[in-house]
Amino acid sequence: MMRPKTQDERDLLLYDSRLQRPVRMKTPEFERNGRIRHVIFSGQFTVPFLEELAGIADMIRMLSKSREGQDFLINLLPHKRAMLYFTQPSTRTFLSFNNACHILGMRTSEIRDPSTSSEVKGESFEDSIRTFSSYVDVIIMRTKESGRAAQAADLMNGIPRPVPVINAGSGSDQHPTQALLDIYTLQRSFEEHGGIDGKVIGMMGDLKRGRTVRSLCYLMKNYQGVRLVFIAPEQFAMQPDVKAHLDEHRIPYHETTRLDEALPSLDALYVTRMQTEWDTAGESRSVDLSRFSIGAPQLTRLKRDAIIMHPLPRGPEIDPSVDQDPRAMYWRQERNGMWMRAAVLMKIFGAEDRLSEIDPR
Amino acid sequence: MMRPKTQDERDLLLYDSRLQRPVRMKTPEFERNGRIRHVIFSGQFTVPFLEELAGIADMIRMLSKSREGQDFLINLLPHKRAMLYFTQPSTRTFLSFNNACHILGMRTSEIRDPSTSSEVKGESFEDSIRTFSSYVDVIIMRTKESGRAAQAADLMNGIPRPVPVINAGSGSDQHPTQALLDIYTLQRSFEEHGGIDGKVIGMMGDLKRGRTVRSLCYLMKNYQGVRLVFIAPEQFAMQPDVKAHLDEHRIPYHETTRLDEALPSLDALYVTRMQTEWDTAGESRSVDLSRFSIGAPQLTRLKRDAIIMHPLPRGPEIDPSVDQDPRAMYWRQERNGMWMRAAVLMKIFGAEDRLSEIDPR
Amino acid sequence: MMRPKTQDERDLLLYDSRLQRPVRMKTPEFERNGRIRHVIFSGQFTVPFLEELAGIADMIRMLSKSREGQDFLINLLPHKRAMLYFTQPSTRTFLSFNNACHILGMRTSEIRDPSTSSEVKGESFEDSIRTFSSYVDVIIMRTKESGRAAQAADLMNGIPRPVPVINAGSGSDQHPTQALLDIYTLQRSFEEHGGIDGKVIGMMGDLKRGRTVRSLCYLMKNYQGVRLVFIAPEQFAMQPDVKAHLDEHRIPYHETTRLDEALPSLDALYVTRMQTEWDTAGESRSVDLSRFSIGAPQLTRLKRDAIIMHPLPRGPEIDPSVDQDPRAMYWRQERNGMWMRAAVLMKIFGAEDRLSEIDPR
Repeated sequence: MMRPKTQDERDLLLYDSRLQRPVRMKTPEFERNGRIRHVIFSGQFTVPFLEELAGIADMIRMLSKSREGQDFLINLLPHKRAMLYFTQPSTRTFLSFNNACHILGMRTSEIRDPSTSSEVKGESFEDSIRTFSSYVDVIIMRTKESGRAAQAADLMNGIPRPVPVINAGSGSDQHPTQALLDIYTLQRSFEEHGGIDGKVIGMMGDLKRGRTVRSLCYLMKNYQGVRLVFIAPEQFAMQPDVKAHLDEHRIPYHETTRLDEALPSLDALYVTRMQTEWDTAGESRSVDLSRFSIGAPQLTRLKRDAIIMHPLPRGPEIDPSVDQDPRAMYWRQERNGMWMRAAVLMKIFGAEDRLSEIDPR
Repeated sequence: MMRPKTQDERDLLLYDSRLQRPVRMKTPEFERNGRIRHVIFSGQFTVPFLEELAGIADMIRMLSKSREGQDFLINLLPHKRAMLYFTQPSTRTFLSFNNACHILGMRTSEIRDPSTSSEVKGESFEDSIRTFSSYVDVIIMRTKESGRAAQAADLMNGIPRPVPVINAGSGSDQHPTQALLDIYTLQRSFEEHGGIDGKVIGMMGDLKRGRTVRSLCYLMKNYQGVRLVFIAPEQFAMQPDVKAHLDEHRIPYHETTRLDEALPSLDALYVTRMQTEWDTAGESRSVDLSRFSIGAPQLTRLKRDAIIMHPLPRGPEIDPSVDQDPRAMYWRQERNGMWMRAAVLMKIFGAEDRLSEIDPR
Repeated sequence: MMRPKTQDERDLLLYDSRLQRPVRMKTPEFERNGRIRHVIFSGQFTVPFLEELAGIADMIRMLSKSREGQDFLINLLPHKRAMLYFTQPSTRTFLSFNNACHILGMRTSEIRDPSTSSEVKGESFEDSIRTFSSYVDVIIMRTKESGRAAQAADLMNGIPRPVPVINAGSGSDQHPTQALLDIYTLQRSFEEHGGIDGKVIGMMGDLKRGRTVRSLCYLMKNYQGVRLVFIAPEQFAMQPDVKAHLDEHRIPYHETTRLDEALPSLDALYVTRMQTEWDTAGESRSVDLSRFSIGAPQLTRLKRDAIIMHPLPRGPEIDPSVDQDPRAMYWRQERNGMWMRAAVLMKIFGAEDRLSEIDPR
């Protein structure tokens, strides 16, 4: 494979190599009347959009604390029906989306077992997606293959009765709502410390194959003065395409294999697990994971107001004893995913305007 | 197997060979106080009933266009619970029924994987069905074996707390709600052209084993002056029992292997796929499918106001380019299934009376 | 394995051998502000609690007969979301809980196939449970392994945002809501005959391995003057721990292999099936099941106002012809499970106070 050279070339790869248009040309196709229509890749998100979504997520979170607020929320979209099409199993993302729908009163249908699909009868992917669109108001989809959600959005844009498509993870390329919840968690955590601007963010673990840290890097250009520290075994270092992107946007980054040295400087440490499912010859096993893990000894070297994030599920890279530490943010981060996904659904259906009707306190 | 000779004998086979009563004697058992109770086979449907259902489906469809109408619908049956018991996987029919329930506010429970069934513990079919009836208000069921839905309805008629049974496809014998949506699609399409009466309807493909075209033929006796054209490879021609039924009701039909000759005369072309799942020795592979398919060249020979139907999923017998043609009716036909199934549920629960309360425009 | 000698030792085993505290010390941990929090084992239930639950279940049952009552119920908990985590398949218990939730308007998410679990990615049981708790308001769980629900409740008691845990069956040790529905069925059946006090209760079948009859025995100490009759093949007789418990609480019991002799004395006969799934070498096959079964001949020897119970699913131990007999209580017993589970949910969420707002008649 040839190495992409320009931003457009990289966007193209990031998006979908089968569709011959770059990301920046695609973005308008995922909107409708200036409103977001399809949520396909994290490159779609602008800073104002991210901030608006975070505001909506805050409201949903606060409203969920009272019966009055909960009743307000379940009456927002009870007339809308979602399809959760998960041919790649994912308990966490599935539950997060399903409950985001339920918070807003939506009804859900699901396919989680590829073997019950009508593709068994030889139906094309396009026909399956169009069938779902016949019955529901939004398709939330997760696939093992790359580019499928983009393909579904393209199909929708060409039929008389399209419905929005939300990418809940398409192979190794994109998982935009994970990026949303990561940004939202950083925003919330640094709310009273000047926001994300100027922070030192460490990323640790399997940076080569970790989709979440890669997406997060691409979003960093939206913030001022951010510095990144990549802490990874040499064979799982951050890939050249990400580093070229950072160079282009003049975002400083530093690579190391020494967690202990990096720790004191960090405002946030984003830990990831080894992506063993992508191993072809047991590569992960060669890593001394203890050097890229966090437990009681590491906590003592971390700033008092730093935060620890993880996309979950976790392996041995975070000791369960860390959960008790106030800096452990990953369980809140997980729950933030549900609020952010509910915010996305509200935005897609234009329900955010109704938030002015209620006082969340 | 002996060939059935009289209508009653055919009805008997059509219904269920294990239950020793003919269809016309069974029909009253599927009613209650003059209202339909169980939906088991298409032979139950009279013309007034089909027209009433179509009227209800029209209302539901129109109400679904506005938030006010949608709110009206989801408040019709929120107190009703459905069981979707699909031991034969069927994504399309499942989703269609599940969303029909959700349109009316109903709650749904599902079994779609036969391996999670309590039949694993050796429970009888009757006990499983009675268990479902303990928990829900209607059982919607699809099975690989014939006659199961009829058997479930019989069981319900003999217990103190029966619930309605809807057949969502029972083996190769019956799929009555598919027949309903086919008739509804024909009615809607010919609404301003004199209705179904007098139309020339072509049926193409695997007519021997296609359940939908067989059911549709049996319903044609309800209409005046209809003529049928069967376009099929010789080894997959329409079966003698259907032809005997047509003869008895003096419905003219013509058999051919030449689509090009038949095309100009048709008001509707109902295309079906090869039912390869019933192959015992790869029979389907011997067919030159290109002679029983429709694409751009065929469209030029079809009447300007004719319609193309297909029960979906489709194989190569309809080229995707045909989807853009205004005569392609199959995607609307699929969506009609959801409206018609919602109409059936409203009728079973007596909710259609409440439609007079609202103006759909 | 050493035989437990004291009540505490037995409690300990009954609860969970990995957690080093006896049941009576655990009970307070499953409460919060004097209200039940987690439903983990039947030893938690006191007589006043059982009676209160039965009263709530009666109300739910009566309210479910009218549209007004149904609307009242579905508006009680529409803001609550449940997770049904069933890694051991169980159609009956799943449907019973799912519909209990739906009666109260709750939304449900489900995992019924262990292979879709994130444990595939190597996530710990604790992390999976905590993840569920991030998204929902109650976790209803069934596992093949013992003690898992207790472990989940312990985890919840140690985190900042705990949710209630309901045990829907944990291996061979506990299935507390089954015990609830059994007691409720006995209470309802003997309501006008002096209640459970003083009744002669027969238990028949595989008493050695049957979880339901074992639990029921442990609850009998709550009633006055009850006598038990164990009717079982010698190799499947009631176990010593249960008999020691009965001795300690001076509850008389009698063991026999002769159903015909026992029948005339019984007020209730609780029939169970052979638990063949626990066979290691086909032990069940050696039993002459006809001697531990009930059919028309046995019915003539049973008291006119006695009742026949069974936890279902049934095998050949109850002939289907018995279903027509007014003494057959097992189908009502099954439906009682749904009412009792809805009552548990109402109690956990404090919704029972609102029952005073409505007159069920």
